[in-house]
Amino acid sequence: MTESDRVAVIGASMTQFGQREEWILELLAEAGLDCLEDAGVDADEIEHLYVSNMTSGEFEGMTGVMNALAHDIGALPAYTQRVDQTSSSGGAGIYAAWQSIQSGASDMTLLVGGEKMTHRTTGEATDIIASITHPVEYKAGVTLPSFAGLTARHYLERFDAPRESLAKVASKNHRNGVDNPHAQFRKEVDVETILDSPIVADPLRLYDFCPITDGSAAMLFCPESVAQEYTDEYAIVAGVDGATDTHVVHEREDPTVMGGVVESGQGAYEMSGYGPEDVDVAELHDMFTILEFLQMEGLGFAEQGEAWELVEEGYTERDGELPVNTSGGLKSKGHPLGASGVAQGVEIYEQVVGEAGDRQVEADVGLCCNVGGFGNCVITTIMEAAR
Amino acid sequence: MTESDRVAVIGASMTQFGQREEWILELLAEAGLDCLEDAGVDADEIEHLYVSNMTSGEFEGMTGVMNALAHDIGALPAYTQRVDQTSSSGGAGIYAAWQSIQSGASDMTLLVGGEKMTHRTTGEATDIIASITHPVEYKAGVTLPSFAGLTARHYLERFDAPRESLAKVASKNHRNGVDNPHAQFRKEVDVETILDSPIVADPLRLYDFCPITDGSAAMLFCPESVAQEYTDEYAIVAGVDGATDTHVVHEREDPTVMGGVVESGQGAYEMSGYGPEDVDVAELHDMFTILEFLQMEGLGFAEQGEAWELVEEGYTERDGELPVNTSGGLKSKGHPLGASGVAQGVEIYEQVVGEAGDRQVEADVGLCCNVGGFGNCVITTIMEAAR
Repeated sequence: MTESDRVAVIGASMTQFGQREEWILELLAEAGLDCLEDAGVDADEIEHLYVSNMTSGEFEGMTGVMNALAHDIGALPAYTQRVDQTSSSGGAGIYAAWQSIQSGASDMTLLVGGEKMTHRTTGEATDIIASITHPVEYKAGVTLPSFAGLTARHYLERFDAPRESLAKVASKNHRNGVDNPHAQFRKEVDVETILDSPIVADPLRLYDFCPITDGSAAMLFCPESVAQEYTDEYAIVAGVDGATDTHVVHEREDPTVMGGVVESGQGAYEMSGYGPEDVDVAELHDMFTILEFLQMEGLGFAEQGEAWELVEEGYTERDGELPVNTSGGLKSKGHPLGASGVAQGVEIYEQVVGEAGDRQVEADVGLCCNVGGFGNCVITTIMEAAR
Repeated sequence: MTESDRVAVIGASMTQFGQREEWILELLAEAGLDCLEDAGVDADEIEHLYVSNMTSGEFEGMTGVMNALAHDIGALPAYTQRVDQTSSSGGAGIYAAWQSIQSGASDMTLLVGGEKMTHRTTGEATDIIASITHPVEYKAGVTLPSFAGLTARHYLERFDAPRESLAKVASKNHRNGVDNPHAQFRKEVDVETILDSPIVADPLRLYDFCPITDGSAAMLFCPESVAQEYTDEYAIVAGVDGATDTHVVHEREDPTVMGGVVESGQGAYEMSGYGPEDVDVAELHDMFTILEFLQMEGLGFAEQGEAWELVEEGYTERDGELPVNTSGGLKSKGHPLGASGVAQGVEIYEQVVGEAGDRQVEADVGLCCNVGGFGNCVITTIMEAAR
């Protein structure tokens, strides 16, 4: 890393998301090896390997997956570490990878995020995921979907937003997902179907929630000076930052403001020199439809209480002013916890380097926002095309 | 971080190690707050908070501990992440904290490592810890103690070393631990007692193994220019590196050579400009007595097959040429997985800044080596007194 160097991304990949037969290690290896092939880099050139994964111990009884992965893909003696930031482990992995390059500790860092979840029952998975939040809340039965329902109710009533506006988020993301060959659900879902689906946490219904998913995703980072030895087509990490909010969710002053989104967004904007008006495409963490509104507002794409209007207007459609979740989002693509933040990064990388295929929009600058827990920690990353 | 800045350590602390009533979050908060007080830094000055912890999910059913800790100690909206590198999570935390400062991402990084283990049975704990290693080995019943026994047998026979030399490692570390107020076992244990203790994994006996422990430890990092605003007494991270070896232990060419130790040591020496001959004090990962030999040799303190002779000669005693494990080591101090690498760092920090009390030796340069699994990943750190 020379002084004038910037941190570049020279490869990206994701596996098929959905119900997979492979176990976590095989999923991680698949994305990791695909990413190396995409970049034309050999495994033995890797200096640092970060694995974003929340729960291989709880879900599969296997820890040390990062060491196993380094071994299995032929990256020894690369340094490796597991990055856990709950459902934002992938975004945290991007931040860790950026730091590894920017600090000079590594000149070639592979990030692989993944999770294997569908072999457990929905109840078991919900219990494991609920352990992210504060015991005073989750032991009282307040799971993440409960927070989403309560927040959605508050938002709709306070800002006089129609219930349909939330359904339109889900419908849009499903529409986008049809063109993503790796998405778990590649089917359009209309607003009526969403509004008629079973209630999960009133007013939110089944189609307001992302599914439980297996899968992994990978990105390859290096100094820009190294990137140029491999390719002319790479992205630059222009800004990245992370921030926490209260771990006890009910202590927050305003339930519609996620402090971690606001703070991490400001940090990423400041580092990059860009503002919300410069962002051409965004991947937001739509684990629940309501979260897309909160992130649009927290990141400055909409005023507080007005995101729903932009969604109604088609502002966030693929052909709109600011396409949001061109990948299909967590809603249609799926949400393998540790993979999701990396997969967001993969989509933004592909959009800014022009490799997004049928999903391609015009984009020089893209942003992704990965939400841990119910905004307990959030990482925002801004990437741009190399110029 | 200015260009000429180095990464400084301005505070350190550890809790009482042993059987604790508190749960993981309380243990982490105790060390974290003590460390801030030691440095005279307020919690709201923290920009990054890393939590080294392997298994809060498996041991306590609580994930997201880093977010809870940021909340509980008043560090919001500091970015936080959990660092897992199995039993070397603490060393990995030092590396992550170093990268956070060196990259300019943070100007004040608190690292807290901890684990709560004693509430589970030894069988349960052994099962959880065994999941670190490769399933082809641990599902066949080869736990970490088994590897240690097999390696010890090989070492003793191949290098014609007396069984007593291993016992002398344990005896020395117990002797050192008597002067560590935070150690789990503050009692001398003579060689005869060790040789008469129950066999665990032949030829290793009970006293060749570290105990199961609860506890936490913390260190505070910042750029040297920031350190000087707070204190004249600080340490510099002169070198740090990590490296992996084969995840399947039986695939290694030479069972007495831990590639991760050799590679991470070389990296840390190269970064620091120091060699083994410059190191005045070392904390080595004596989870099993045999590991102290392997690290002494891998780090260049002894030739292969000769570490046992140095131990016999008293070379590694507190008043010897190279005091090893002045803290009492994992053997006497205890081994709360995520805390251990940080506690090694705490000891080296205290030695080089002259705050080691009754354990103080003459030391300008100190090294700690934190071993993950059975050498599956190793992190070596070199610290020196600020000059």
